[in-house]
Amino acid sequence: MKVNRDRLEKNLIELSKIGKNENGGIDRSFGSDTDIEARKWIKSLWENEAHLKVRIDAIANMWGEDGKESDLPPIVVGSHHDAVTNGGMYDGALGVLLATEVMQTIKENNYKLRHPLNIVSFSAEEPNSFNISTLGSKTVSGTLTKEKLEKIRDEINNVELKDAVKLLGGDIDKVDEILIKDNDIAAFLECHVEQGRNLIERNLSLGVVTKITGIYREEVKVIGEANHAGTTLMRYRHDAVLAASEVALALEASVKEIKRDDVVGTVGYMNVLPNAASIIAGEVSLIVEIRSTDSNRVKEVLCKFAPRVNEIMKRRGVEIARKTILDQKEVSMDETVINSLKKAAKAIDEPFMELPSMAGHDAAHIAKVARAGMLFVPSIGGKSHCPDEKTNIEDIEKAGNEFVQAVLILDKELN
Amino acid sequence: MKVNRDRLEKNLIELSKIGKNENGGIDRSFGSDTDIEARKWIKSLWENEAHLKVRIDAIANMWGEDGKESDLPPIVVGSHHDAVTNGGMYDGALGVLLATEVMQTIKENNYKLRHPLNIVSFSAEEPNSFNISTLGSKTVSGTLTKEKLEKIRDEINNVELKDAVKLLGGDIDKVDEILIKDNDIAAFLECHVEQGRNLIERNLSLGVVTKITGIYREEVKVIGEANHAGTTLMRYRHDAVLAASEVALALEASVKEIKRDDVVGTVGYMNVLPNAASIIAGEVSLIVEIRSTDSNRVKEVLCKFAPRVNEIMKRRGVEIARKTILDQKEVSMDETVINSLKKAAKAIDEPFMELPSMAGHDAAHIAKVARAGMLFVPSIGGKSHCPDEKTNIEDIEKAGNEFVQAVLILDKELN
Repeated sequence: MKVNRDRLEKNLIELSKIGKNENGGIDRSFGSDTDIEARKWIKSLWENEAHLKVRIDAIANMWGEDGKESDLPPIVVGSHHDAVTNGGMYDGALGVLLATEVMQTIKENNYKLRHPLNIVSFSAEEPNSFNISTLGSKTVSGTLTKEKLEKIRDEINNVELKDAVKLLGGDIDKVDEILIKDNDIAAFLECHVEQGRNLIERNLSLGVVTKITGIYREEVKVIGEANHAGTTLMRYRHDAVLAASEVALALEASVKEIKRDDVVGTVGYMNVLPNAASIIAGEVSLIVEIRSTDSNRVKEVLCKFAPRVNEIMKRRGVEIARKTILDQKEVSMDETVINSLKKAAKAIDEPFMELPSMAGHDAAHIAKVARAGMLFVPSIGGKSHCPDEKTNIEDIEKAGNEFVQAVLILDKELN
Repeated sequence: MKVNRDRLEKNLIELSKIGKNENGGIDRSFGSDTDIEARKWIKSLWENEAHLKVRIDAIANMWGEDGKESDLPPIVVGSHHDAVTNGGMYDGALGVLLATEVMQTIKENNYKLRHPLNIVSFSAEEPNSFNISTLGSKTVSGTLTKEKLEKIRDEINNVELKDAVKLLGGDIDKVDEILIKDNDIAAFLECHVEQGRNLIERNLSLGVVTKITGIYREEVKVIGEANHAGTTLMRYRHDAVLAASEVALALEASVKEIKRDDVVGTVGYMNVLPNAASIIAGEVSLIVEIRSTDSNRVKEVLCKFAPRVNEIMKRRGVEIARKTILDQKEVSMDETVINSLKKAAKAIDEPFMELPSMAGHDAAHIAKVARAGMLFVPSIGGKSHCPDEKTNIEDIEKAGNEFVQAVLILDKELN
C-alpha cells in the first residue's frame, strides 16, 4: 500500500496558495480571512476527495471522520493548518495533508481497519494576535478551560477569542463537552517538519520523536531611571538598556556553561521605554525562554542565571523583577506509538533516527490525555517559520508510506 | 530695576495649564492643539500685557517686538514654548516668560535702550512626531533649507511639515527670507533650566554657559539570523539581541575608559525584529549617541568603540552596519555675552558658576549667526522632561534680575 505522491504534492501546493504573500511566505494566522479560506478548502477536500464527514468542534478544531461504526475508539492523524506570519508551506499543512493522503490510500486499497480513522486540524497552533498557541489541543486536553478562554482577546485588532471561534463555527460555551477522556482516542499520530538539522545532517528521511521539549518562560522587567542622555553623568546613571543587555548575556552564559545540546535559552523579545536616542532608558521588558527535554536542565540554568541577575541589579542600582509566565514540562511520546513508528520504518525498509523535539507541538498536549507520537521529516538547512522552509517531496512520500504502515500496526495492536 | 516675581510666577502657572495632562505633565508638542492654544495665549500676553507687536515668521517662530526705530540691530531674548510628551512646566516656557518679564520691567522703568529689544519663541525645539528638533533656530541659522524642510513629514499622523507650519502662520516657501545675517541681531540671550545637577549640588542659582555640547549619533544595525528558539542549538546561533547587547555595553566601556565628565554615551533606542519570545532575533536596530563639549572626546570614544564592534561582529558571525546620522559639533557661547552675564551677576551680587551645557538648545544654532549666550537656573534633583521638573521661583527671580542687567550691559557695549 503506497501513498499517491503526486496527489499529496498537488494538495500541498494548492493549500500553499491560500495566504501566500508577495515574499513567497504564507500569512495564515488563526481567525484571519486566509484561515477561513483554508478551512473551506480543507472541508471541500475532506468531503469531496476523501469522502469524510467534517465536524467542527467547540474550539473550531476541524475533524474529518470516516464514519465507521465500531466499539473501538478512533485512531487520529493530523496537525494544524494555520501559519506564522510570513511562514512556510510545510509547517502544519504537511501533517494535515499527509493524514488526508494516508486516509485516502487506506480507503482506496479497501483495507478494513478495526478502528475508525479520523483526521484533525487543530485551531491556532502557531503564535497569533490572541497571544495563545496550540489553542485547539490545549482545549481538548483540558489545559485551557472555558473560564480562561473567555478572557482571551486580541488587543491589536480588538477581537474577543470567543467571537473569533464562533466565526469559525465553534462555541466556547461548549468546550467542556469536547474534553478528550480515557479511551476516546486509541492513538494520535502527527507528522511535522523537524525545524532543526538532525535529520538533514545525517541524510535521513524519518525521525521518530521520543519527547517534546519543556518550555519555561519568564518576563523580566528591568526598572532603571529615565534621564537626559546629555546632562546625566555616566556615574549617576541607572540605565535599563545596559542592565537588560547584561541580563540577556547572563542567560546565554548560564546555558552555555552546561555544555549540553538538550538545553537552549533565548531572549527574543525586548521592549525599551521610552525608546528615544536622547533619553536614558527607564524600563526594559524582556522575555527569557529556556527549553529542554529534561526539566532538570532548566533548573540548572536558572540556578546559574539567578545570582547573575542579582549581581547586575546590585551593581547597576536597578530593580529587576522576574515573573514566570510559562512552565510547561517536557512530555514523552507513548511507547506503543513510538514502537509502531519504528516497526513501520522497518516495514518500508527506511532508516530512521530517534530524536527529541525542541519545538512545541499539538502532540505534546494530546499526549496528556491519549497515546501520542510524532514523526519528523527533514527541514532543509534546518529552516522553518520562513518562506525558505522546505522538505523534499521524496521524504514526504516516505513519511506517508511509513504512516500508512504505522496506522495498520496500531490498528492491530490497540484495543 | 527688579523684575516682578509674582507676575512672572503667575504667567508660568498660566502657561503650564495649557497641555497639562492627568499625570501633572505637559503635552505641548509642535503643531498640536495645545501648541496652537499656547501660541494664542503668548500672543495675547505680548500684545496686551507687554504692548509688543507680534510677528510670526516663515517657520512659525513667534517674535514679540518693541517696535523701536534704531540704526542698531535688536537684542533678542527668548527660548521655546513647546514641550516633550509628559514634560515639565519650566523647560522652554521659563525662557520665553522670563524674556517677557525682562521686557516689561525695562519698559515699566522707562529705561531707554539704544537697541530695539525683541522676544522670540522658537518653533519645535523639542523632539516631536516630525522627528526634528530645534526646527525654528536651525531654519533661521541656515542649517535647514527649504529643500530639506519640504521633505519632512510626520509619518505617525500623516502630516507634511509645511502644512503644520502653515497652520501656525508660517510659510516654508519663504524661509530663505528669514535667514539671520551678519548684524541682524546684536546679541541673543536664552535662560533655561540646567537639566543637570551642577547648580543644585553647589547650591548656586545662576550658571553662565560657556559651551553647548556637540551631539554625535549613529544608527547601528545588527543583522544576525532569525531562527527557531527551540530547534536551533546554541552553537548555530547568530543572535542579534546578544550582539546588540554587547554593542551597547561596548559603548559604555569605551566612554568610561576615558574617565572624564565632559563626555557621555548612550543607547536609548533599541528595536528588535521579529521580537517574539520563541524566535531568535534576526535584526536589532539601535542608536548610539555620544555627547561632548570637546569633539576630540567623541573621536576618542569612537576609536575605542570601533574595534570592539568589529570583534563582536567577527565572534558572533553577525553583520553590524554603522551609519552616522548626526554629527553636530560643540558650540562656544560668545565671549562678550558671557562677560555681560558674569558682570550682571556681580551687579546683582549673586554668586554663579561657569559650566557647559550637555543638552542641545536653540542658542547653539543662533550662535552660528549671531553673538549668543545662555544662563542656567537649577533643576531640582537634576530632573527634566518629566512632570517632576522644578526650579524654585527665588532662583527664577534672580535670573530675571540678572538678565535685566545683562541687557543693559550689552545695550551699552554693543553696536
